[in-house]
Amino acid sequence: MKTTSIFIIFLILNQMMGQNYPAYQNLMPQPRSLTLHESRFVLDSLFQVTIPEASSKRVQIAATKFIRRLTNRTGLFVKYGFPVSKKNNPQAAIEVHYKKKGDLRLYEDESYQIDISSKRIFIKANTDIGVIYAFETLLQLLDNDKDTYFFQNLSIKDKPVFTWRGLMIDVSRHFEPISVIKRNLDAMVVAKMNTFHWHLSDDQGFRIEIKKYPQLTEKASDGLFYTQEQIKDIVQYADDRGIRVIPEIDVPGHATALLTAIPEIASIKKTYQLQRHAGVFDPTLDPTNPETYEVLDNIFKELSSLFPFEYIHIGGDENEGKQWDANPDIQSFMKQKGIKSNHELQTYFNIKLQNILKKYRKKLMGWQEIMTDQMPKSALIHVWFGRAGESLKKTVKKGYYAVLSNGFYIDLLLPAATHYRTQLYPEGLTDEEKHRILGGETTMWNELVTPVTIDSRIWPRTLAIGERLWLNPQKVDIRNMYRRLFVQSYHLEELGITHLKNRDVILRNISQNQDIRTLKALTRLYEPLKGYTRNKGGKEYYTYSPFMLFADACSADAEDALKFNYAVEDYLKNHNSDSKKQIIAYFELWQRLHGKLQQLDTNPKIQKLLPMTKSLMKLSQNLLQLSNNSVEIDKGFIAHLRKVLKTAYKPYNDVDLSGIKSLNQLISYWLSLRGYTWK
Amino acid sequence: MKTTSIFIIFLILNQMMGQNYPAYQNLMPQPRSLTLHESRFVLDSLFQVTIPEASSKRVQIAATKFIRRLTNRTGLFVKYGFPVSKKNNPQAAIEVHYKKKGDLRLYEDESYQIDISSKRIFIKANTDIGVIYAFETLLQLLDNDKDTYFFQNLSIKDKPVFTWRGLMIDVSRHFEPISVIKRNLDAMVVAKMNTFHWHLSDDQGFRIEIKKYPQLTEKASDGLFYTQEQIKDIVQYADDRGIRVIPEIDVPGHATALLTAIPEIASIKKTYQLQRHAGVFDPTLDPTNPETYEVLDNIFKELSSLFPFEYIHIGGDENEGKQWDANPDIQSFMKQKGIKSNHELQTYFNIKLQNILKKYRKKLMGWQEIMTDQMPKSALIHVWFGRAGESLKKTVKKGYYAVLSNGFYIDLLLPAATHYRTQLYPEGLTDEEKHRILGGETTMWNELVTPVTIDSRIWPRTLAIGERLWLNPQKVDIRNMYRRLFVQSYHLEELGITHLKNRDVILRNISQNQDIRTLKALTRLYEPLKGYTRNKGGKEYYTYSPFMLFADACSADAEDALKFNYAVEDYLKNHNSDSKKQIIAYFELWQRLHGKLQQLDTNPKIQKLLPMTKSLMKLSQNLLQLSNNSVEIDKGFIAHLRKVLKTAYKPYNDVDLSGIKSLNQLISYWLSLRGYTWK
Repeated sequence: MKTTSIFIIFLILNQMMGQNYPAYQNLMPQPRSLTLHESRFVLDSLFQVTIPEASSKRVQIAATKFIRRLTNRTGLFVKYGFPVSKKNNPQAAIEVHYKKKGDLRLYEDESYQIDISSKRIFIKANTDIGVIYAFETLLQLLDNDKDTYFFQNLSIKDKPVFTWRGLMIDVSRHFEPISVIKRNLDAMVVAKMNTFHWHLSDDQGFRIEIKKYPQLTEKASDGLFYTQEQIKDIVQYADDRGIRVIPEIDVPGHATALLTAIPEIASIKKTYQLQRHAGVFDPTLDPTNPETYEVLDNIFKELSSLFPFEYIHIGGDENEGKQWDANPDIQSFMKQKGIKSNHELQTYFNIKLQNILKKYRKKLMGWQEIMTDQMPKSALIHVWFGRAGESLKKTVKKGYYAVLSNGFYIDLLLPAATHYRTQLYPEGLTDEEKHRILGGETTMWNELVTPVTIDSRIWPRTLAIGERLWLNPQKVDIRNMYRRLFVQSYHLEELGITHLKNRDVILRNISQNQDIRTLKALTRLYEPLKGYTRNKGGKEYYTYSPFMLFADACSADAEDALKFNYAVEDYLKNHNSDSKKQIIAYFELWQRLHGKLQQLDTNPKIQKLLPMTKSLMKLSQNLLQLSNNSVEIDKGFIAHLRKVLKTAYKPYNDVDLSGIKSLNQLISYWLSLRGYTWK
Repeated sequence: MKTTSIFIIFLILNQMMGQNYPAYQNLMPQPRSLTLHESRFVLDSLFQVTIPEASSKRVQIAATKFIRRLTNRTGLFVKYGFPVSKKNNPQAAIEVHYKKKGDLRLYEDESYQIDISSKRIFIKANTDIGVIYAFETLLQLLDNDKDTYFFQNLSIKDKPVFTWRGLMIDVSRHFEPISVIKRNLDAMVVAKMNTFHWHLSDDQGFRIEIKKYPQLTEKASDGLFYTQEQIKDIVQYADDRGIRVIPEIDVPGHATALLTAIPEIASIKKTYQLQRHAGVFDPTLDPTNPETYEVLDNIFKELSSLFPFEYIHIGGDENEGKQWDANPDIQSFMKQKGIKSNHELQTYFNIKLQNILKKYRKKLMGWQEIMTDQMPKSALIHVWFGRAGESLKKTVKKGYYAVLSNGFYIDLLLPAATHYRTQLYPEGLTDEEKHRILGGETTMWNELVTPVTIDSRIWPRTLAIGERLWLNPQKVDIRNMYRRLFVQSYHLEELGITHLKNRDVILRNISQNQDIRTLKALTRLYEPLKGYTRNKGGKEYYTYSPFMLFADACSADAEDALKFNYAVEDYLKNHNSDSKKQIIAYFELWQRLHGKLQQLDTNPKIQKLLPMTKSLMKLSQNLLQLSNNSVEIDKGFIAHLRKVLKTAYKPYNDVDLSGIKSLNQLISYWLSLRGYTWK
């Protein structure tokens, strides 16, 4: 019986994972147009890739990485490990053509075309950036049967809807080493994303070496920062992958780190220390102090020489102005200049920054708060609060250009579906206004995220956001999206992305290297608390608290929760016995986990999980009874079930069962069969 | 039945893993002296670590990392995330004392002392390097029961036997990014190793930026090299961990990469190209050309300024002198100078190098071949061939100082036991001669190793070598060593070491993200071919061949093979039924794997494994019959078993069953019970 149940679950898994779909149905992002042809291109170890003579570094890297990844996926001992120029190999299997090196600016041509016939594959693009994306699509098209790897013959024409497809990583709350940034840049290419936003300073750390002010990293980074050489290395690495980098120095708020190093420019003169908690804090730059602008001028000067992209992000969010209210000199400055509010004062500050940036030929980008009546329309607005559609609408109607992050806050740990559904074109916009919506950006805020867990927070959900920004699908098929998401997700491992493997690292730590299968089954079910409830008020966790806990091994879109929901969906639609078997198999699995966990040598970390698995066991037992027509139930049972359900859905260990959304419907249906109602 | 079998296997696992041993019995390396006391120091979230005021960066880093690792292991929400100075916290739980900053030179004091009582832990050392090792030992002493984490009260006094405890990494055959080097430096500290030998050049790539000759990395690295900034970063990172770094530029042989960039100094003038195969190749520097010394002078000059350690490694191995024989100018040079052999010519070359190094205040180290009669005794000899004891003896008897690597070639993929047994003091040495044996070095040659697999080749076996070099145990208990090895092995994951987690990455790649439990069971049984038989002749694999194959997921000391051997050992000694049950459970598991593998959606990578699992199934079936007294057997059965055994032990997919060493003994015993003999 046990073996059967588990076997059924793996059947669901295989169906969900889309093992049986042809590769071209698993593309993510889906291309704009795809035309199928007859026949296949079969790979053998003699295939060669040709690229134009004197190809750009981008094309050379993309073609070489393509060969490596194809080799590793297929196990083929390829003879030609590097791309060669067409002159030397007029009849190569894969032929790349492109017109020019792309510029890493807005609206650059990123389109590409793929034509696969039985003997040849052509990649065509206007820029080398298009070539990069073509290789990513081609790799996703790799298919196989028992004996061969092949590409289905087809033609693809593709280009993105939005020109700003970004990922932000906050390296202040928790620092992320260079290797983490690089592997995420590689993964961004898979998601066809082109903008890396580097949140380099905040209350918890200042993470970039500024030669003029060595104290910034000496005093305000705990030794965890990027040297300028490392910054250049990353900017080049990103450029090689068609990615532009926008740095952010968050001012005038979120400035504790900056003021720890340079307290002279604070609105309240005192000694500052790095924040170890999460939250919004008071330390704020003094906008009335000329030295403030001198410091920022020097910082932005160095930034401008390090980052070639046209924009610099100045933050500007969540300044509550408490220090401004508390400083009489600032108050009299405002009176004297006729500045009526803190918002106006911040605009005064922002315009000064914009003038500094202009000197260095840079444009200003800032979080939504910078959008006040006086702020020039040349500022790029980073929309992040309010209802996404309304905030966007308001922004572009006013005449600003906008990038949307509201809807893409992956640190909220919401399902991929939520992000995927986020629409970037609100109703009622003119074409010109729509044009002002440049795209969107995934935001990875790092309060509860370390190098061990960051990948599991960014991926795979950012692949779904990538499709939203590339294709902007109008009709969404969530189940199809999840199927494709799971297929492409595991391929990210070949880039070193740790979202799958580090879960096991955490579980081995919890179990102290005992068998982790029980713990793993639990992580497929429980999800980390959503919407900032994990660290309520920001005071439970320090930046140096443990992040190797059960919640850190769990992630949004728990696999079994998702699959269970789909089994219930199918069952309620068709009342088919296969779906019911799957549902029952899950209940049987879940009721056993408590006992299995108790079989391990225990320790304080395992002890904390037992109340959780016990409540899951009780819930599963009750649901098994309910599912079994031969078991009689009464009102007492229903009352008991309600209690058991409530207990099981409580938060334990910073996780809960909220991923299982379909249980109420299922219970309601089963009760209705017996003539009861359930609310 | 199935469930029972698997359960028994996990029982063996738990016993082997030493779950039930107190932490102080799991130390690796074991300390020189350990005295147990009554009682425990119980950890709570308020514990603090104090360090002397103005402590060195090494102590600050070691103490901070200790707190982080302890926090993550225990899940404790510690209040004090950083060490503080004693002045501010006179009564902290953990108190560190040391006398001075250690120098990263030979014979530096690395001793330490730990005293744990119920309320206080004292760490005492003469240098900050001793403090680093004390923290490592203390972390290994962390113990727990159901509800608490604690340290057993005890006193430890410890210091190393050998002053050279090294790990060499070859980054030429396959490049290893900075992040790989850093995490391995961290793991070296766990093994209490103090010397990182960086093999930076060979036929397949020149991996360090030389400002004077940018062509070295432009033409001879495929873009995979370390900038001098990155080198400085690594040297500092190593220094912070008490590790000195010795760079190697391998000359005059193994020089294809060097000559690809600078063909002018080759013994045969022509165009060279990077080697893509493994092996020993002809390209050799011209020792008669003054330009050769000019180039090397410039290279060693830059190296000397980058690496503060007193030694530089000049390679010198495996020069077959074919190019010297083939060049008439070199032949006449030899005649003119009275140089009688290629060996003498190489010594002429080596002495010139030694003089260059002297200018930069560096000493010369080279592989064993440099030890010719004319070579000055000041050269440090890196012993690597012949019988370890004899080679060492010969070297020190001649008056040279020596470092041993023969016995520590981990790329041979031999069991940890083999390396652990390697003795560093041959019989018949005077004290002075013994003193000339500085220690040993693990050598990680990278022909078949990539960033994905390197950690699984180095670890955990290098922990056993670390104990050999630290403690140099005279009486070895192999089973005890393995027990401790498995305990400390998984803790390496907290440093980012990927030896466990990347196995699953490879298996997911093979299975295309299906359930990997069957494949995993196979990796616990099969071991990669030993002793360079995998890539015989060096021609099957290119440097860009796939290294995500089944063999790459396997490693030396396959867990189940090892445990099976111990079950057989116990059974043959005691004839106890528990051991027999364990043995039977393994056979039952192994006979099922073929069927389970066939249940997966197949692909060309899985197809290749089926003949292997089929032969394992047949073997297991036959052994189950043999084990079962109620099954009659005859001579025909024995002949058949012999055939099945031979087929099962053949190499498949670059792996074999050679880890299962005990099968013949077991068969022989079972047959003897039935009156048959087995040879």
